[in-house]
Order: sequence, then C-alpha cells, then structure tokens
Amino acid sequence: MSEELKYEILFKVKYPSDIRDMSIPELKTLCADIRKYMVDVISKIGGHFGGGLGATELTVALHKVFDTPHDKIIWDTGHQAYPHKILTGRKELLPTIRQLNGISGFLKRSESEYDAFGAGHASTSISAGLGIAIAQRYKEKKSKVISIIGDGAMTGGMAYEAMNNTGVQKADLIVVLNDNNMSIAPNVWQLSNYFNQLIAHPEYNRFKGYVWDLTGKLDNFGDRLRKIAGRLDRGLKAIVTPGMLFEALGFRYFGPINGHSVHHLVNIFEQVKTLNGPILIHILTEKGKGYKPAEKHTQRLHASTPFDKITGEAIKGGASAPSYTSIFGNALSEIADKNDKIIGITAAMPDGTGMDIFQKRHPDRYYDVGIAEEHAVTFAAGLATEGMIPVVAIYSTFIQRAIDQIIHDIALQKLHVVIVLDRGGLVGADGPTHHGSFDLSFLRFIPHIVIAAPKDEAELRNLIYTGVNYREGPFVVRYPRGNALGVEVKEGFEEIAIGKGEELVSGDDVALLAVGSMVDYSLKAAGMLKEEGISSAVYNMRFIKPLDETLLDEIAARFRKVITLEENSIVGGFGSGVTEYFADKKYKCDVLRIGLPDKFIDHGTQKELHELLEIDPKGITKKTIEFVKTS
Amino acid sequence: MSEELKYEILFKVKYPSDIRDMSIPELKTLCADIRKYMVDVISKIGGHFGGGLGATELTVALHKVFDTPHDKIIWDTGHQAYPHKILTGRKELLPTIRQLNGISGFLKRSESEYDAFGAGHASTSISAGLGIAIAQRYKEKKSKVISIIGDGAMTGGMAYEAMNNTGVQKADLIVVLNDNNMSIAPNVWQLSNYFNQLIAHPEYNRFKGYVWDLTGKLDNFGDRLRKIAGRLDRGLKAIVTPGMLFEALGFRYFGPINGHSVHHLVNIFEQVKTLNGPILIHILTEKGKGYKPAEKHTQRLHASTPFDKITGEAIKGGASAPSYTSIFGNALSEIADKNDKIIGITAAMPDGTGMDIFQKRHPDRYYDVGIAEEHAVTFAAGLATEGMIPVVAIYSTFIQRAIDQIIHDIALQKLHVVIVLDRGGLVGADGPTHHGSFDLSFLRFIPHIVIAAPKDEAELRNLIYTGVNYREGPFVVRYPRGNALGVEVKEGFEEIAIGKGEELVSGDDVALLAVGSMVDYSLKAAGMLKEEGISSAVYNMRFIKPLDETLLDEIAARFRKVITLEENSIVGGFGSGVTEYFADKKYKCDVLRIGLPDKFIDHGTQKELHELLEIDPKGITKKTIEFVKTS
Repeated sequence: MSEELKYEILFKVKYPSDIRDMSIPELKTLCADIRKYMVDVISKIGGHFGGGLGATELTVALHKVFDTPHDKIIWDTGHQAYPHKILTGRKELLPTIRQLNGISGFLKRSESEYDAFGAGHASTSISAGLGIAIAQRYKEKKSKVISIIGDGAMTGGMAYEAMNNTGVQKADLIVVLNDNNMSIAPNVWQLSNYFNQLIAHPEYNRFKGYVWDLTGKLDNFGDRLRKIAGRLDRGLKAIVTPGMLFEALGFRYFGPINGHSVHHLVNIFEQVKTLNGPILIHILTEKGKGYKPAEKHTQRLHASTPFDKITGEAIKGGASAPSYTSIFGNALSEIADKNDKIIGITAAMPDGTGMDIFQKRHPDRYYDVGIAEEHAVTFAAGLATEGMIPVVAIYSTFIQRAIDQIIHDIALQKLHVVIVLDRGGLVGADGPTHHGSFDLSFLRFIPHIVIAAPKDEAELRNLIYTGVNYREGPFVVRYPRGNALGVEVKEGFEEIAIGKGEELVSGDDVALLAVGSMVDYSLKAAGMLKEEGISSAVYNMRFIKPLDETLLDEIAARFRKVITLEENSIVGGFGSGVTEYFADKKYKCDVLRIGLPDKFIDHGTQKELHELLEIDPKGITKKTIEFVKTS
Repeated sequence: MSEELKYEILFKVKYPSDIRDMSIPELKTLCADIRKYMVDVISKIGGHFGGGLGATELTVALHKVFDTPHDKIIWDTGHQAYPHKILTGRKELLPTIRQLNGISGFLKRSESEYDAFGAGHASTSISAGLGIAIAQRYKEKKSKVISIIGDGAMTGGMAYEAMNNTGVQKADLIVVLNDNNMSIAPNVWQLSNYFNQLIAHPEYNRFKGYVWDLTGKLDNFGDRLRKIAGRLDRGLKAIVTPGMLFEALGFRYFGPINGHSVHHLVNIFEQVKTLNGPILIHILTEKGKGYKPAEKHTQRLHASTPFDKITGEAIKGGASAPSYTSIFGNALSEIADKNDKIIGITAAMPDGTGMDIFQKRHPDRYYDVGIAEEHAVTFAAGLATEGMIPVVAIYSTFIQRAIDQIIHDIALQKLHVVIVLDRGGLVGADGPTHHGSFDLSFLRFIPHIVIAAPKDEAELRNLIYTGVNYREGPFVVRYPRGNALGVEVKEGFEEIAIGKGEELVSGDDVALLAVGSMVDYSLKAAGMLKEEGISSAVYNMRFIKPLDETLLDEIAARFRKVITLEENSIVGGFGSGVTEYFADKKYKCDVLRIGLPDKFIDHGTQKELHELLEIDPKGITKKTIEFVKTS
C-alpha cells in the first residue's frame, strides 16, 4: 500500500507548521496515523514504545498550539518522544532509531532544533525548563516554555526541587504532568496512591464528570475548580486534591484532563498560552494507548525488542546464555534463602536489575523506592547501621545520581552496603545518556570501597556472595548489560579473596590485564595474537580496588609491556590505578591503557560500538601488535 | 564560679538517663543551663551556634521521652547537635569541638553510640531514618526512630524522595520538622512561603490559638485538627494547610507546636511514642533562641568565629588578605557589569560562596535555588541553551550531589556553564563530611570539561573571566577555603590560554608540578630545598584538564624526577592525569604524587592538617628530599 493511502494525513506532514491549520477531526486522524506508523516501524526494529503511544495526542496538541521551535518543549526521559520525532522532520528516519548512525531514541539537541533540551535520565525537564523560562526574562522575543514530566519521574527529588524553585521564582513555565499511573514500576508515588484512593471515593466520582469534560472558558475555570474542591473537602473532610497540592507549590492547576482527547488538549493549551506564572496541566493517559497488546503488557513494552504487530509477542532469536541481570537476581535470591539479613533495593527498575526475581522469592525483604537513587543509597546506609545487609541494584549510569550519598553516608561511616551496578560499560541502543562509562572512575577514589568486576556469570555469583559476607564497608560489583558468556555455573557459592586477581593464560611478550567484560575479549585476542607470533599473558584482575599489588609486582618484574583493559573511560579508571601504582613503585614497563576514549559515545549495538572503538578482540589484537612492535 | 553554682542542673547530667526522671521545671532549668554553657564555651572557640540554641528544648524533650541510645535519633546536617552532644557524655569535651583530636562539629557514629547516623550534608535524615525504621521490622526488640529535619533542608530533593517512600512503606518513623523559617538563606521553600501567607491571614489567626496551645488528648487531636482545617478551607477557599499536605504524603501530622515549650514537646512525644506509621511533628523554633545577639544575627551566627558573649561582636584577629570567596564575588560582579548575559546561581549559600556580593550588584540576575544542587546545575544548563552564561557557585563537597547533572545535562550537550567550586581541598574544622577532597577526581573523566585551579587571587579573577568567555562547554574553577595570598590584584581582567601552565622557578634536580593551593607551598618548598642544596623547578600547571601537554613534554625531557602536587585525593586526580599522560608517551621519569591520601581526613585547622599530612612546605620539602635521594 502506498504511504498516501496507508497514512492519509501523516503523509502530508513533515514539520509542525504543517499541522497548525488542521481541524480537530484532521488531528484525530493524524494521531491514528502516527500510532499506526509507530507500530509498523517499531514492530520490525524494536524500541521504546508504550510511552509514545500514550503521548500521541499530547504531542500533536502541543505542536498544533505552540510555535515550535521558537516555543520550547522539554521532554523528560524521552522514551515518549517518538511522535515528537515523527512530527519534527524525522519521520523518514524513524526506522533508523537507536541504530548506529541513526537517530537517537531520546531527545538530542544536536539532532534537531525542535529538541530544546536533551533527555535520558528522569526528572530533569522542570529544572531545564525553568532555566529556559528564566532566560526569557532577558529577551525581547519571548518563547513559551513547556516541560513535560511523567508521574514516575515525580518520585525523583530533582523534580520536586525544580517545582519548588519554579513556585518561588513565579516563572512563566507550563508543566504538563503526563499521569499514566504507571511509572516503570507502579505504586511508588505516594501522592498518586493518595489521589487514587481519593478518586475511588464515590463522592469524588460525582464531581469527576465536571472536571474530565472541561470545555468551559478559562475565566470561569479557576472558580469552578475551587468550588468543586470546596465541595469535595466538605464531603471527605479536608482532603488535598492534586490541584490544591500544586497550588500550594505555587502553580495554577488545570485538570485532570483526558490526555487522549486532542480536542480538550488543544483547548487547554490555547487557554493557558497567554497566562503568566507557573502553570501545571495534569493529563491522564494510558501507556500503550491504541495498541491492544501494548496496553496489556505495559511494563514489557516499555522498551521492546522486535515483536509481532498483531499479537504483540516478541520475535524470538536463537537460544542464548542467560543475562547477567537474571544471574544476579537468582544468585541474590539463593543467598538470601540462607541469610535473612539481606534486603533488596531497587530504584524503580525491578525488571531491569533482576530485583523482580528477588521480589518473587523474598517479597518481605524487597523495596522499590521509586526513581530516587539518592534516597535508595542513604536508605541502604540506614539499614546497614542496624546490621541488615542491603543490596542496592542500580544501573551504572543512574548511580551517577548518588555519588555523594555513597561517599558521605556509606563510605565515610564504613557501612556494609552492597552496590550492584548493572549495565556497566556501553549499553548499546540507548546511547550516550545511558552508557555506564564512568563508574570505575567515580568510585575508585572513594576510601574504604571495594570495586569488583566479574569475568563471567560464575564469578558474578561468587562476587555477590563475597560482597554480602564482606561486612567491612561498601562493596561494589559491576557487570555489563546483556547476555553472560554461557559458562558452567556450579551450585552453591564460594568466597573470593578480596583484591586477588588470577593469571588465565601465561605468555612472554606482553601482559593483558583485564577487568570485567574485557577478560573474555582478552582471551580471544590472545588466541589471535598467538597466530601472529605474539605470546601474550592474560590476567583477570577482578578487583579495581584494592588492586592486586602482589600480582602487579610479579607482572612488572616479568614484562616490559603491559596493557590494561576495561570497559570504562581510560581517564581515572582501572588503567589509571595501574599507572598510579607503577609510578609509586617506579616500575618502568610501558603501559597501554585500552578502554573507552575520553569522549561521549554515540548509540549502536554493543558489538558495533566495541568494533568501532577497537575494544573488541580484533581491535585489541591490532592495538597490541602496534604496542608490542614499537620500541 | 563553680560548675555546681553556675549550671545548677546541667552539672548533674552526664547521660540522658540522668534526665528521664526530671520534672518539667527541672527540664526548663536544664535548657537554660545548656544555653548558658554553649554561649560560654562557643564564644571562646567559635562554632555553629544558632542551630543548637534553637534546638535546645527539642533535644532535651527527645532524650527525656525516648530511650536513647536504644531508640534512634537521626539529626540532619548536624549543626544543631551541640545540646545533643552535651547531654550524651560529651559535655566536658565541648571546648574541644571542631579542633584537631577534639569532638566533631557534626554527628559521628564512631564518636558516640548516641549518634545513630552521621550527618553533615543536608536532607539525609529521613532516608537514613527510614532505613533504620524498616530494619526494626526484622527485629525482636524494636527501637523507635526519630528523624529531625530543618525547613531549609526541606528544599532538598532527597528529603522529598524519602518522605514519599516513607509514606508508601507506611513505616514507623517519626519525623520532626524543625521549622525556624530561616534556612541558611531565607525564602527559598515555596511551601513555607505559602504557609506563611496563610498564617498572616486573619481567618487563620483566629484558629491559631487552638493549635499552638495544644495540650489535648491525642484521640481528639486528629479530629480537632481536621475540624480546624475544614473551617479554614471554607474561610479561605480550599487552601492546603501543612497538616493536609503531609497527610497527603502519608504522614499523620501534629502541629504546629511551640518548639521552645519543653512541656508541650514532652507531651507530644509521649503521645506519639506508641503510635505506628509515619508521623510528622511540626515544631516552630527560633534560631539563636535565648541569646539576643544570635537571634538578631542569625545568618552570621550560623557558623561563628569567637565572639564577645555580651555583644555578639566577633573578636577581630590581625589584618589579613581577603578571602577567595570575596575575590570571586567581586570579580564576577565586575565582569557582569559589562556582560549582561551572566546569571549568578547559588544553592542556599549566598554568603559562603560570595554570591551575596553579586546579588547586591545584580539583584535581577541572581538566583538562590535552595539546598538543591541537582536542580541548580540543570537549571543552569537550561539557561545556557538560551545563550545566557550561568555561573553556579557551590562548595566542592556539595557539588558531589550534582555529578550526574554535570555529565548528563551540561557536558553531554557541550553547554557553556561556569561552575565555581569554593572550598576545594581541606576545609578545616568542618572535617570529613565537608572536605573538598575529590572534585578533581570526579570531574576529570568528564569529556569536554575544562578544570582550572588558580595559584592566587589575581589568577582567580582572570580564570573567572576566561571561563565566562569560553563559550565551548563546561568550565570549572576550583579554589581553597580561606584567605587568599595577598598578592597585588590589577584592575581589569586578562584571558588565560586554556590548558596552559607556566614555569615559575627554574631548577635542575626535580620538577614540582603544582595546581591551586599547592603552587604557593611549592614555591616555599623550593626555597627550603635550595638551602638543602636541591635545585627544584616549580610549575604552576593551572589546568587539570586539559593538561598542558607541551609543557609536560618539555618537563619530561628535562627532568628524571617529577613531583605532582594537589590538594585533592592522589587517586584519580591531577597527579593521575600526569601519570596517564607519561604512560601514553612512554616517558620514564620517576613520578611522586603528593596530595591527600586515600582515606577520609578528620577535622582540624587547615594548617594543622596540611602539616599532619605533610603537604605543607616543610612536608613537601621532606618528601622531595627523600624522593630525590632515592635512585
């Protein structure tokens, strides 16, 4: 079928200017087209999916009413921005999304002038929007500024800091709260729980119709809402409605509004467009709206692999090794069977971190704190003071939010907290906002910390066990995203000596000192090097801190050439630790540090990126040959 | 006068068990004694002062009612904990507070079993308290858990994350909101602004008496409060009271209560002691209460130097050079006279960072975002996208809260934000929670960042000017706490070439490569070394990133021995950058890294700590001699 027949309105649209004169019925068709197009494309290539389906009408209404890109739309996290990309000159590029050299899965300033602010991590949009809004005070031609935030991101403290400051500043900022009552994991936002109880109350429902079907003129709106709220309060005894809450925070509140009615959305945006001061528009949406399988499987379709577009079932690839994530989840669950001090903590990522496995087996010792990494870490510190053994599982990229808490609340007090960092190293399609490129660098300087990276899943299990039994302070285990190696995993667990590495392959010409994912690559490189006549020793160093100094002494005595390998920035990471130690001991070996270069790495598959950066076995082989051959 | 006569009740008290049987009148006298003792001691030695005066009755009432240390009191920040220290076995040690080998100015687990959780940075107490409270679920002999938090710390997102999670968990946690309507800088908490307007309303005042004088039975209390709130709502049209707000967050609310009535406080604590679930007690206090000069100068007496205890006037020392803080504040103000794009941002530290100077000269371009470092940084990023030049001034130790935002919101988007880190290096009396020991390590791995450290105040001015004009990405200037060197400061400003260092003293035997505060020390050491017959060259490297590679090439060619010097951890900082570069270039000089050791450093004066760690001129001289003399 031709584009023209298949997407009757969408095929006419390239930029938002193409929709400004459309009628409401046309916009409705446009929304249907966008959904159809997204399902057609994403079912083939995979991607974040539910968020965009839920935000289709919102996106269309924003670009219809506001003068983008002069007016600024700031998205949060960015998963939901596919319709925005489709409407802002990137429709044809959607099939390249999240692929090497394709468009980003998130917002990106360098990609489009319509992407007013980059996004990736949650809860940033109000802060950024406030900055942009305050900047208008000093400009002649002022832009309107609209920040969108989901209910999930409202558990993040940064969002609250920004709301507070917006109220204090009385800034001209419109915040759209896109409330699908379904953050990545549900029921972690207390205010939402509270309001849901409220909504379930019969007295509330009698008034709900007024609000939901709001089409009245603005002048009357505030008063009507106040009257409704007043009646509610008498009915329910001084209860806070969302409106009252946000008004206390200094915002004028409008809502709740049906976020799938493009008509209502256009109306409300037209009405608030000319208002000053902080405004909050509360819209109710459904994640995955308009695509049945997505509505049912909202959590699975948050980020999707390719799937059958009729049934929504994933298209299966070949059999592969289990993921590191599930290895961790199962290991922790098993260890906790025999150790009742263990507490599992996630920050809104039970599936992503494997904590869902622990939750099923030990529901009474499982805590999801919401998107709140700072709190997660200090909460764990509190537990540790009482002799519990908290295990906090967070993606490497998100622990960047809690470095102060690791330093100040855990390490300074030598508290025993196990921090498990999934997705250390390059994560692939999510790209630069999500790569775990820096954790070894920002943890290594912390006194009293142990940092370990397993070479495979068997070692991961033993390192988790070792960490849980360590007792003397913070213990970090860091491993990559994706499938493990498929090595044999024995039953039970063994403790690993802290700070001890191992020689895996002996050799003469050069020593490869690897941690984590780079151990396997180094073994493969050693094989290739042998074919080139180079005899390389391979060491699984295993601990980034403390370093195995005895082993390093031996290596420095035996080798004139040493290579360090890590899937982390070469600035300040494992390799730097080795060069520091060699300097201290006045060892004069040549040291080549292989790792991630000192720049932000774009998206692509992990394999593609490893090749591109020459940190795959072939690249390591090439660099080793060069290094060995130069004097 | 003998202790017995001077402090009629306090002299009998060593531990909280000594006050459990005291009558209310005795407790009142005890409070008076504590205040008298604090003024007597702190007027001689200096210290944080206003907070403790404001929290005297609170502290006495808590230790009277709760079974400490079995029950856990968790303070926030910890400035206000002097009365707590006095009551928990450390009365005689108060004169040693904040001094080398003396007791800490903050809470410290290793100091006393009554310090249930360390404190220093703001907004951590609810997270830690929740961890401790959740741990009780798994214990037989359960402790009550009480977290105290000030209204200032309530602008921090972490506090909100923790409140939210406490509500969701329905944890048995008592939170005392110590509201003195005066965080370090006032008027940054919107909810407080909102409630203050409310309190000023005549309708509210008619009911205020009921609440303030609350002595009624608990069973009636909730209902009464609801009735009052209901009447308020009808009067003021659906307004939120603090109680309603906290109830929406899942807390049972009690208050506001006169925080200087030990009688009311004891009553309310007795009443809530047996309740389950999240409880919030809102108390109103005055910072500096009971000491007239402190009540008047609350901000100045937040942290005090020694003062005359009758007038409250500071006891002046000799004339000294201006502080780096004021040099920065004046420089930025001058630069902004001619550059209307500059925006000054502080996170609740206008005085501490010198932003108060900017505020006076450019009030329309000054923003205090509250204790909200995460938001401060992303707010700045938003401003930068619009071509403004935000200058964010934050203490080194507090920027640890915003590393993710620097990476994700500024550097990744190559936004031009100037980040000014005061108190880089050891801060002295505030000790390990406040030392700026790690900033060079946690910033150096960030791609696209420039990190500079001036050797003196003249260079600080020029680096600020250079940073403001840089335009290409994030630019960090980092300098120490305290007085500058007293060098001549010329009018006007000069740009400094990015990444360029300078040779200050030429020499033959060893090269001293210093940054920031270590440049002056190195010059002094070079003089001492000369007397020992060692000819040392001194370099002001000035930039930690990018390094002056040309200069390093020259140095490596000329010297067999190189020393790096920085007031930052030797792990991952400037010295590591030099060893990395030397490894890359296969330079074989011996490198000695002088800096802060890989451990947490206790409190003491800066001078004492520098001596102790041998990073003062004498220590540097000693280490250099050893280094030069070993082959």
